[in-house]
Amino acid sequence: MTVKIGLLGFGTVASGIPFLLKENAEKIQQAAQEEIEIAKVLVRDNAEKERLEAAGHTYHFVTNVDEILADAEIQIVVELMGRIEPAKTFISRALEAGKHVVTANKDLLAVHGSELRGLATKHGVALYYEAAVAGGIPILRTLSNSFVSDKVTRVLGVLNGTSNFMMTKMVDEGWTYEEALKTAQELGYAESDPTNDVEGIDAAYKAVILSQFAFGMTIDFDNVEHKGISKISPDDVAVAQELGYVIKLVGDIRETASGLSAEVSPTFLPKAHPLASVNGVMNAVFVESIGIGQSMYYGPGAGQKPTAASVTADIIRIVRRLQDQTVGKAFNEFSRPLQLAAPGDVRSEYYFSIVAPDKTGTLLQLAEMFNAEEISFKQILQQASDGKQARLVIVTHSMSKTQLENVTAKLAAAGDFTLQNTFKVLGE
Amino acid sequence: MTVKIGLLGFGTVASGIPFLLKENAEKIQQAAQEEIEIAKVLVRDNAEKERLEAAGHTYHFVTNVDEILADAEIQIVVELMGRIEPAKTFISRALEAGKHVVTANKDLLAVHGSELRGLATKHGVALYYEAAVAGGIPILRTLSNSFVSDKVTRVLGVLNGTSNFMMTKMVDEGWTYEEALKTAQELGYAESDPTNDVEGIDAAYKAVILSQFAFGMTIDFDNVEHKGISKISPDDVAVAQELGYVIKLVGDIRETASGLSAEVSPTFLPKAHPLASVNGVMNAVFVESIGIGQSMYYGPGAGQKPTAASVTADIIRIVRRLQDQTVGKAFNEFSRPLQLAAPGDVRSEYYFSIVAPDKTGTLLQLAEMFNAEEISFKQILQQASDGKQARLVIVTHSMSKTQLENVTAKLAAAGDFTLQNTFKVLGE
Repeated sequence: MTVKIGLLGFGTVASGIPFLLKENAEKIQQAAQEEIEIAKVLVRDNAEKERLEAAGHTYHFVTNVDEILADAEIQIVVELMGRIEPAKTFISRALEAGKHVVTANKDLLAVHGSELRGLATKHGVALYYEAAVAGGIPILRTLSNSFVSDKVTRVLGVLNGTSNFMMTKMVDEGWTYEEALKTAQELGYAESDPTNDVEGIDAAYKAVILSQFAFGMTIDFDNVEHKGISKISPDDVAVAQELGYVIKLVGDIRETASGLSAEVSPTFLPKAHPLASVNGVMNAVFVESIGIGQSMYYGPGAGQKPTAASVTADIIRIVRRLQDQTVGKAFNEFSRPLQLAAPGDVRSEYYFSIVAPDKTGTLLQLAEMFNAEEISFKQILQQASDGKQARLVIVTHSMSKTQLENVTAKLAAAGDFTLQNTFKVLGE
Repeated sequence: MTVKIGLLGFGTVASGIPFLLKENAEKIQQAAQEEIEIAKVLVRDNAEKERLEAAGHTYHFVTNVDEILADAEIQIVVELMGRIEPAKTFISRALEAGKHVVTANKDLLAVHGSELRGLATKHGVALYYEAAVAGGIPILRTLSNSFVSDKVTRVLGVLNGTSNFMMTKMVDEGWTYEEALKTAQELGYAESDPTNDVEGIDAAYKAVILSQFAFGMTIDFDNVEHKGISKISPDDVAVAQELGYVIKLVGDIRETASGLSAEVSPTFLPKAHPLASVNGVMNAVFVESIGIGQSMYYGPGAGQKPTAASVTADIIRIVRRLQDQTVGKAFNEFSRPLQLAAPGDVRSEYYFSIVAPDKTGTLLQLAEMFNAEEISFKQILQQASDGKQARLVIVTHSMSKTQLENVTAKLAAAGDFTLQNTFKVLGE
């Protein structure tokens, strides 16, 4: 028997799927024990259809999704259009029509995942999305399968290739944010509106999905605090280097005594930390757990073939489950009630970059302000002054989000101090 | 229903299993939908039994394996005794009795894997061994599941924690091999006879198993060339540093035009390569493939809880498959006829450390010798001489094993040269 699939969209990633199906035909046949055939491909309009046909593509292109959804022979629908709509409507209708769905759409899964997973469960079909987080890295299936015996306590991830490329240039080459962005745009890594990548939004979507697989909790996107890289200055990068750290945009999901905390923020990583050497457009997910201890999963976060490899692995998994008649199972079966961490329980070391008047007593005033919040200093650097203003850099010992909020408010209230940046510092 | 398991051996790793079953009871229950009970535990003799009971363990200890093998209620046997015998006999009998088997025994799997897998297939039972390679890193299941859509072209691995700990000390602290070994033995990382770890034998066992999962080929242990770290001198380490490399003991499995090549050898890794920062007792497997591209899986290679986490994940996988009635499937379904690479197809850059008379014409003679084999130099360093002998260090461009063999023979034949060491160099 041949398993027929329908593709929604035929962009870069989609065209990687037939490549892999062909290159690995024998291996896939051994695993799936079925032929997999791309039966129909949805494209935008007749113009796109004609363009693809003129380019030599011989697929059965359709411009109306109903031709796929109403085709009883198509068992698996693969959505690769991206964005929320019409992807959401098409996926929902596919699930309702009893079709299994594979998608790489992280925005959609992060925002409407519960609804879609509910539909899949209701109709006894599969909804797989390994490619939605960290592209080619098989992190979701690993969390789901191999961590089934383990308890994850923290997930740290370099989850966005564009911003990591930029940070790598800012750290290794001393580029400014603006220079790094310009090059990222020229190389096609960053879009003309780079907000999602540089402000941590894309990484926050992935943190939502990782939270489900690692901690069994369905957190709302709005509960993931996110802060981007656009405010990082060459001074921050230089000080980090001097103190033995590398700055990266890091997703950080932790379970504290009161509940789950998830955030994306520029983070000082000790140079010896495995995440510190994840460079360029590569992604990595670092997992801390009570059994395995520390492990890391590293690979390309995006790109045609890596993403297609994850999507195709999902397709093959569904075909195997069709054979085994076990296809209804959820991609992630780990589920617990959501509990969010109290800010007082979310602790970290922090870096403060503060500009202050260069006069007697400033440092004392600052020390008293931090001391009043019971925050102690680990390192302090006073940088060359222009005679009027000095830049003070502080790395604190572990402190809570509540303390961070309080001391930040006090610094703002005391008119003398300008808080340039506050970044999280990962302890050794 | 409760699934009952029998443990063969109750050493360090085995006692990690009840810890994880208890700590993650709710999560495991969700996944397995069954209780998992350690019904019987085989120990060596009555003395061990009494010792364990005195220490407060309340398991049903038995000293005769038949009490487990003949117990119809025990569905899964977990072997954690290590070594070849009696483990091989016990596992064989368990499989023949229709019991599913989980083991972490890499030596056994590498040498007698075909026979044991054959028995498992014949009796329709599972034989899982995720913990056999790189302890806590879920590399086998990842290769089996997530790489099903991909074609692996090369696997490079830091596969032995003991030798990697030693190499890390030799590189970072400038220790000699002897100093590193002494400390590794004091810390309990190395055994009193360290041969398996330091000579690459343990890593070669793992390479055999990785070959099956990554390339579908069952290679014989004897086909894995292995060379250890005991001949690496502080001079080699220093030169590697100077040239921008880190030396590590690396398992290298590649598919060439003629077939598969697998070897374990000290390798110069470029400092920016992800494997170069895998330090201490940590392991990592770096995979190159046509789909994902480059990915790496990093974690603890051994230890009680990491190994127990892998073993327990295997147990849970079997319980899930019992539920799904799909339990007969092989751990690795990818299988192709074995073809070994011709030495002329196995290419790499190489490092040569040669001691030669310090006289006019020596370098010319050496250059002619390499030139005659069509080997070209990438880098050459002549080190301070004592007036009589000079040390020459050569890094070549890519050359084959055949060329390596030929030039090594010629160097030996020309009495003037002493070839101190030859190591593989991974290109950028």
